Amino acid sequence: MEIAYINGQFLPREEIRISPDDRGFLFADGVYEVAQWYAGFFFDMKSHVTRLKRSLRELKIEWTDPDRFPSIANELIRLNDLKTSYALVYLQVTRGAAKRTHYFPSPEVTPTVYAFAWGFTPESMLQEQGVTVMLKEDIRWSRCDIKSVALLANTLSFQEAHEKGMKECIFVRNGVITEGSHSNIFFVIDGTLFTHPESNHILSGVTRKNILRIAKNAGIKIKEEGVNKDNLNSCQEAFITNTSAEITPVIDLGGIKIGDGNPGPVSRLLRKIFDEEIMSIRG
Amino acid sequence: MEIAYINGQFLPREEIRISPDDRGFLFADGVYEVAQWYAGFFFDMKSHVTRLKRSLRELKIEWTDPDRFPSIANELIRLNDLKTSYALVYLQVTRGAAKRTHYFPSPEVTPTVYAFAWGFTPESMLQEQGVTVMLKEDIRWSRCDIKSVALLANTLSFQEAHEKGMKECIFVRNGVITEGSHSNIFFVIDGTLFTHPESNHILSGVTRKNILRIAKNAGIKIKEEGVNKDNLNSCQEAFITNTSAEITPVIDLGGIKIGDGNPGPVSRLLRKIFDEEIMSIRG
Repeated sequence: MEIAYINGQFLPREEIRISPDDRGFLFADGVYEVAQWYAGFFFDMKSHVTRLKRSLRELKIEWTDPDRFPSIANELIRLNDLKTSYALVYLQVTRGAAKRTHYFPSPEVTPTVYAFAWGFTPESMLQEQGVTVMLKEDIRWSRCDIKSVALLANTLSFQEAHEKGMKECIFVRNGVITEGSHSNIFFVIDGTLFTHPESNHILSGVTRKNILRIAKNAGIKIKEEGVNKDNLNSCQEAFITNTSAEITPVIDLGGIKIGDGNPGPVSRLLRKIFDEEIMSIRG
Repeated sequence: MEIAYINGQFLPREEIRISPDDRGFLFADGVYEVAQWYAGFFFDMKSHVTRLKRSLRELKIEWTDPDRFPSIANELIRLNDLKTSYALVYLQVTRGAAKRTHYFPSPEVTPTVYAFAWGFTPESMLQEQGVTVMLKEDIRWSRCDIKSVALLANTLSFQEAHEKGMKECIFVRNGVITEGSHSNIFFVIDGTLFTHPESNHILSGVTRKNILRIAKNAGIKIKEEGVNKDNLNSCQEAFITNTSAEITPVIDLGGIKIGDGNPGPVSRLLRKIFDEEIMSIRG
């Protein structure tokens, strides 16, 4: 029986119910995080907690316990017999249930906290062979730096990719490639690694940050600059990153073949170092 | 005891619970409508149903019963003893509860439909005296034409206005005034009525449409054109519209006094004709 977490309690998931007056349901007034369990540990949980705190702060949601995310996550792994599996833990915090008003409830209500875990098999074939992705005008809001549940634009866009048999929808804003619907994107141009700088138009991905660190340590030249969609022809490599897919090479982006259509050496090197880092933590 | 509607049933509101895996809660993957009950009838319910159908279509949510909105709304009025009151009915339809994936559930799941009604007292003093509103860069997504529950940008922006003691937050995109966080906005410049044209950057308000019709019939010159924020000094009048506040004059917009700081003749005329139309329906 699957056990999930709601407001301080671990319960059978199918028993968990929330109020339809939750502001998460009525207004998308909430934030979330997803951390990966590597059959024994969470990778860089610290960064997820830091980002969760930032998201809560930006929305002025007063959840006093973001530091409890690691213990909630560990308990979900234990209760669901996932200790020796690859798994993901999802945690969502909303402003809570209140009479529907556009302004925040006053006095404040108790935030709603929901979390669950599920085992998964990493898509190593995709990571090995690379994926085809589509390009689309970025229709999202201008606070993509907040990891909020206001994900309608992301789901609509990803659905479009999904229906076309593509593995991600990559956004273009004012001609510049920002990120994917649930990933960041990197490019290799003449040996330099490019990715969109942190801004209100991208989420500061935990994997993005770790890849930048790894690349820097490996002596790869880095430019945190957005790539113009008209310059895709000059890219030798591209890859997307997120917590669950880690580093996935992109071999075709909006109909443009990247490099020779196979994952390139920089992508493969970074994947190798990332995997080694995971292995070294496992010990 | 307050009665609300959930998935075909009328139940005490506090008994209603939804799944935390509802895509309305996880992804803001849903739409809504609010219609006003004028102590005896809904005004222009037909337009609300038409817009609901459009919103559902844009999101590809397969709820087969949007034509039931009027009967659900009427039943909520009856069950909550609101027949002789002013009241609002809120109806929300989400894609339903499913395992969390960015793409739509496949096979489809049953949409979640939630509705409730509440009596209210029209803020006639504000309509009489006018309100002060703030101006802010439009941070919302590029599909504001869909009446979705992805309202985080709207609530954050409105909260900002609320904390400043202002009655609405009006958005500016690329220098042009689009609409408010939950209203449309009109301007009078040298006798011509201006409002932003229908586009992906505004919601096509039911009241907006009715005001345009009324103004046209009254022989007022209309331009569906956005007003640049730098031209606010040349506006003699401004007013916001929505279903619950109808026509509310704006006397100060982002620190700029509109006209002589009192509701102007065009705003008052349109309010008068609108009120007469309501009265004539009442009969």
